[in-house]
Amino acid sequence: MKVGFLGGGQLARMMALAGYPLGLRFRCLDPNPESPAADLMEHIQAPLNDPDALRQFSQGLDCITIESENVPVATLENLLLHGSKINPGIKALATSQDRLYEKSTFQNLGIPTAPFTNIASREELDKEVRSRGGAFILKTRREGYDGKGQFRIKSPADIDAAWAALGGRDLILEEWLSFDAECSLISVRDSQGNTRFYPLVHNVHQDGILFTSEPWSTFSNTSLQSKAEAHAKKIMQELDYVGVLTIEFFVMKGDLVANEMAPRVHNSGHWTIEGAVTSQFENHLRAILGLPLGSTELREPFKMINVIGHMPRASDLLNIEGLCLHDYRKKAAPKRKLGHITLLRPSQEKFEAITRQLK
Amino acid sequence: MKVGFLGGGQLARMMALAGYPLGLRFRCLDPNPESPAADLMEHIQAPLNDPDALRQFSQGLDCITIESENVPVATLENLLLHGSKINPGIKALATSQDRLYEKSTFQNLGIPTAPFTNIASREELDKEVRSRGGAFILKTRREGYDGKGQFRIKSPADIDAAWAALGGRDLILEEWLSFDAECSLISVRDSQGNTRFYPLVHNVHQDGILFTSEPWSTFSNTSLQSKAEAHAKKIMQELDYVGVLTIEFFVMKGDLVANEMAPRVHNSGHWTIEGAVTSQFENHLRAILGLPLGSTELREPFKMINVIGHMPRASDLLNIEGLCLHDYRKKAAPKRKLGHITLLRPSQEKFEAITRQLK
Repeated sequence: MKVGFLGGGQLARMMALAGYPLGLRFRCLDPNPESPAADLMEHIQAPLNDPDALRQFSQGLDCITIESENVPVATLENLLLHGSKINPGIKALATSQDRLYEKSTFQNLGIPTAPFTNIASREELDKEVRSRGGAFILKTRREGYDGKGQFRIKSPADIDAAWAALGGRDLILEEWLSFDAECSLISVRDSQGNTRFYPLVHNVHQDGILFTSEPWSTFSNTSLQSKAEAHAKKIMQELDYVGVLTIEFFVMKGDLVANEMAPRVHNSGHWTIEGAVTSQFENHLRAILGLPLGSTELREPFKMINVIGHMPRASDLLNIEGLCLHDYRKKAAPKRKLGHITLLRPSQEKFEAITRQLK
Repeated sequence: MKVGFLGGGQLARMMALAGYPLGLRFRCLDPNPESPAADLMEHIQAPLNDPDALRQFSQGLDCITIESENVPVATLENLLLHGSKINPGIKALATSQDRLYEKSTFQNLGIPTAPFTNIASREELDKEVRSRGGAFILKTRREGYDGKGQFRIKSPADIDAAWAALGGRDLILEEWLSFDAECSLISVRDSQGNTRFYPLVHNVHQDGILFTSEPWSTFSNTSLQSKAEAHAKKIMQELDYVGVLTIEFFVMKGDLVANEMAPRVHNSGHWTIEGAVTSQFENHLRAILGLPLGSTELREPFKMINVIGHMPRASDLLNIEGLCLHDYRKKAAPKRKLGHITLLRPSQEKFEAITRQLK
């Protein structure tokens, strides 16, 4: 079977690495000539909204999937019109690429989320911030990721700067929550509605970018797993979801507050390559192709650390016993995710030494 | 860094899958248009002894390696003349592709091996079989694998048939040993002489082809690990070896008898993908590129089973919990290795049910 990826970044790259052992083949569509996935599959170099490229791309594919929630909905519509099978579907994509739809979905399903309101003008922003009081975070409804498209409003005095940064785009204002920790749940659902859930992971961000992930159970003895799974089940059912879905939660006073979701494999699940029986990448492929889902069981404790902005020499990293390196072969740039490392059974000391080094 | 593979079979395919996460790139040379490695790397489709193809192949490579001991020595000589770096080297290749040199090396290093003699004519064969008595195995000195190029001689009555099958080629006659079991050691050595060894595995063959592997320690409580490592160290030092080397042993009365070696990653080490901290494929690449060697520690018990002749439907295999599928995407043919599966922590019952099914 042959799978097409809309996008040729590190997620497509890692899906292919997980899928070749299953006997699958791959093609990606990405305008970047140096796409991380291009080395290891057929690469059509064109924008995601180019109709000719889409026609060429979709030839002979058994299923198409996305590696970013920022794929235009029109691209999926075009592909569907021409008979392609796409997982996850348009409903999931449209919902998760707009924060207003996303948070409304959480709210409608009774899943706790930060109070939010749509902001259509400067006047509305003024009114909301002044009347409600407290701190907020103003976000673009679309295309924000890794902390981009966000502005924190601690008091009405910040409104000018927030509007200068984001005004003119579709916006959403969310109440600022003082959460205790962040965690995420990687779920997978097949077309028959079977679901599997990976163990919840504790995430630490730095400048809005994920920096480390570890099993929630090694960070805290509070079990939130069943609550998280119940929330995920509702969302996946609502969206007729097929594939891997990631939900990021705030942890507040022992409870979960849904922050956002991603209709795809996720950085906080990269540890599953070594740490779970079946990785998130393989399970996504299994789900979208109608193959049986694999075990999401944790194999052993791990810590995942992102490599951001600068890739150390491989020889320095590989000297560390039990370190698994994942270099995406991307050009170095500030705040860019260039790779990640997974440490198997690391001592806290070792983990801290390496994170200090990578910071 | 970019690595070139002489041969584009499943071993090149699995080395690439292990090497992409390290940020490496790959090219292979193989005359087969449907080489299993061709999907995931640059493929030059030409014979291994084609001088023009070799020139094109070697451009811009940091290191060249082999995936079969049957690569012509002249190919390596050609590449060396043009300045390529090749690991393992010519000495290792030449030694392991000729059973006479191979067994002489074992003998010269004091490593137990079956008594053997070179056979240059029908007369010599007659004389040796009749004068020594007992059972033998007649083998071609070169190009035998998976039980090919071998003929068992139980008594002088079999000489005619043996000569009809193999006569006219360079031959070696070995005494037939009634061994208790077969096992293999996967070793890796870097250019500074650092070595690492995987846990010894117990191998079961079927019609001369490897069928299953499991950790020796789950098969037998006799530790042979240190003996095997001492033998491997001597051989690697003698051959100035860089890369993964595999030695197959017979186990007889609690001792090891070296049967043969392969200057490459090996089928009996495929379990290391899931079962060891660093796989044989990654460690081979690390060694030949001068990167630090990774941990060879066993992560958890496993059983590896080869898929030979017929590949079952993926959906049937993936229904089995904890089964890791490796489909090489090869055309089905009798006795051809089409893939393998690794079972993590399987019960003996489950293992037996699956091997019965795959037989």
